[in-house]
Amino acid sequence: MKINAERLAGHFEAMSLIGKIGETGTCRPTMTTLEKQAFELASGWMQDAGMTTHIDHFGNLVGRLKGTDPSLPVLMMGSHLDSQPYGGRFDGVAGVLSAIEVMQTMKEQGIRPRRSIDVVSFADEEGWRFNKGLFGSRGILGKLEEGELQRMDKDGITREQALIDFGCDPHKFLESEYKPGSIHCFLELHIEQGPVLDLANKPIGVVSGISGPLWLTVTLRGMAGHAGSVPMPIRQDALLGASEIVVALNRIATQVPGAPTVGTVGTMQVFPASRNIIPEEVRFTVDLRDIDLDRRNRYEKQLRDEIAAIAAKHRLSVSISEDTNSEPRYCAQWIKDIIHQQCRELRLDAPELMSGPFHDAMALSYACDYGMIFVRCKDGISHNPLEFASYEDLALGTEVLYGTVLEILKK
Amino acid sequence: MKINAERLAGHFEAMSLIGKIGETGTCRPTMTTLEKQAFELASGWMQDAGMTTHIDHFGNLVGRLKGTDPSLPVLMMGSHLDSQPYGGRFDGVAGVLSAIEVMQTMKEQGIRPRRSIDVVSFADEEGWRFNKGLFGSRGILGKLEEGELQRMDKDGITREQALIDFGCDPHKFLESEYKPGSIHCFLELHIEQGPVLDLANKPIGVVSGISGPLWLTVTLRGMAGHAGSVPMPIRQDALLGASEIVVALNRIATQVPGAPTVGTVGTMQVFPASRNIIPEEVRFTVDLRDIDLDRRNRYEKQLRDEIAAIAAKHRLSVSISEDTNSEPRYCAQWIKDIIHQQCRELRLDAPELMSGPFHDAMALSYACDYGMIFVRCKDGISHNPLEFASYEDLALGTEVLYGTVLEILKK
Repeated sequence: MKINAERLAGHFEAMSLIGKIGETGTCRPTMTTLEKQAFELASGWMQDAGMTTHIDHFGNLVGRLKGTDPSLPVLMMGSHLDSQPYGGRFDGVAGVLSAIEVMQTMKEQGIRPRRSIDVVSFADEEGWRFNKGLFGSRGILGKLEEGELQRMDKDGITREQALIDFGCDPHKFLESEYKPGSIHCFLELHIEQGPVLDLANKPIGVVSGISGPLWLTVTLRGMAGHAGSVPMPIRQDALLGASEIVVALNRIATQVPGAPTVGTVGTMQVFPASRNIIPEEVRFTVDLRDIDLDRRNRYEKQLRDEIAAIAAKHRLSVSISEDTNSEPRYCAQWIKDIIHQQCRELRLDAPELMSGPFHDAMALSYACDYGMIFVRCKDGISHNPLEFASYEDLALGTEVLYGTVLEILKK
Repeated sequence: MKINAERLAGHFEAMSLIGKIGETGTCRPTMTTLEKQAFELASGWMQDAGMTTHIDHFGNLVGRLKGTDPSLPVLMMGSHLDSQPYGGRFDGVAGVLSAIEVMQTMKEQGIRPRRSIDVVSFADEEGWRFNKGLFGSRGILGKLEEGELQRMDKDGITREQALIDFGCDPHKFLESEYKPGSIHCFLELHIEQGPVLDLANKPIGVVSGISGPLWLTVTLRGMAGHAGSVPMPIRQDALLGASEIVVALNRIATQVPGAPTVGTVGTMQVFPASRNIIPEEVRFTVDLRDIDLDRRNRYEKQLRDEIAAIAAKHRLSVSISEDTNSEPRYCAQWIKDIIHQQCRELRLDAPELMSGPFHDAMALSYACDYGMIFVRCKDGISHNPLEFASYEDLALGTEVLYGTVLEILKK
């Protein structure tokens, strides 16, 4: 193995102390002194690896190794060092530390690339503080949306104020943007955040693409009444309708055995929520994902038809809002080929799998070809202090990333 | 008509001003100065009707018309003057004001009964302040439970303190109890709180019994995971399981068309309640009622079997707690016969129907025979400021009650 597994593990250990909660958890919100500490630690390692570093105006930490021909589009790697409020040590961190380890190894191997290499820890990937994520990775591509700087966190601090407090200058965003064509490709290593690799007993997976979610919010309105006195046939029970929709969504998402479609209702609020009052209003969210957009669209149509039929049956009024409608973003075949080749050289049987969760790579996919390496994560647990990936697996993934970078640099 | 409909309507109007909210609502919590005001108003009317009045040590307002033979068991009538926090003008009030109108009419008709008649406004029927109801009606029968006086309201005031503040002395409860055999029968007029009479276009109904509820709390535990990454076949989605149970309960409760069985899930809490996390734990309540206890027991068994099967299918752990298990309490046939007869004399086609909600009569049913008269309530809406019963219907019901009392006094 070319990379230094022990050094890599040491970096994970050191990083895990910043914003540590409980025994194994992390709370490191974006644009805080905790993230700043994480940036300082990572900056030091980047500089050890021969890179120059700076924090750009979006709050991204950027390390650059200047190539011998700086006019060439850069090879970019990275992920994020911000965490969920009740998160783990590996989500995001793995992509940043593996990229730094690749750079350190290149330096030790005396490899001086023609094209420059940027390693980025993107600002606010997680998105919970201002309820909208991928901020830094969208920012460098000029893809921020109207009003984003006015979004407030729970303490009433705007994104704009948080940026300024972090030392950024929103008036200078343009200076931190990457011009079209200036990024050759993007690589991101990430823990799977799902159980597929763990169940298959494979440490490494090759990502085929990121299946963007369709997010709906459904509100059903019926009629409250005393649970003891309104006969069943004349009820307009919003929770019964909602429950039938949950069952329908599951049937729709599982109609093709083995397909990667996933459908989830993750939240449900019931009003008035009294044990002896028939629910009058129920609001719930729908999350539908598929790497095959045509199929997802067909399923969405089926679901909307079912919702209409169930609402009519129970005489419920229904309103549906579409909160997010992301299309799947596929990894570049040529990069997947290189990653597969690196895995074979390490005698790894690396299955190809789609990513349900999105990542900074999804934002980058609109600017350049991209590839992703997944590292097995125990029991598929993520966004939780129990999130776990072994240092052995992380080292293997980093070795694959290293080989992939060298191969890309040859082209 | 013997009773005075105009006077009765005036009493409703006057009572509705105490604790009035909005245009038509009432908030008159038990054991408060508002309830005390209501008691003072009602006491005045009771005294006008020739009764002596006092507030007993449970916080009940008791009006008594002494009979010519005070050794006979009393005829008791009543209901309650406390209201839901966001309630209407008729629930409970109708039973107290109709009983007072009956007494006033008897006085005007010069009727002096052999047995004494007690009209009671029972303390804390509603039960929301200390999360346990029928306090006064259970109290007079010596049926309070361990620890009831230590129950606290949301401001930390114990039931005991509230009683003392109200002028009661919990050490003297025994003085306020009715000895076994001392109550001849109990009559309660109440708005239906359901839509059956309104849909049938009938102002008055004869209650067949109160179908006590079975109350369960069901907790399902599965496994949280990212909604984008955990394949459908290996999910342990607690909300999917809960939804299937809601659908199953509805199927079970409606299996006999036309039966009065009702099954309701009124509350549901989802954890962690994030739109892109598979629900790990869902807790919901079950309310199952039937006037036929055997059938309710069979349905409970069916439901528990379904819950077990659904939990097994989704690999969920399940726990079920039984919060309340009341048996149906049937009205006395001889009292129903009298009420039916009175309705016929008024040319009222009064259907017989069960009461899903419970009432003070349920507590009294353990001490004596009882009967109930239901008055139509618009659209079945209750426990809501929109609750409405017409003064015409209330007068009709009061006339039926008057005739019923006279008939009972003859026996």
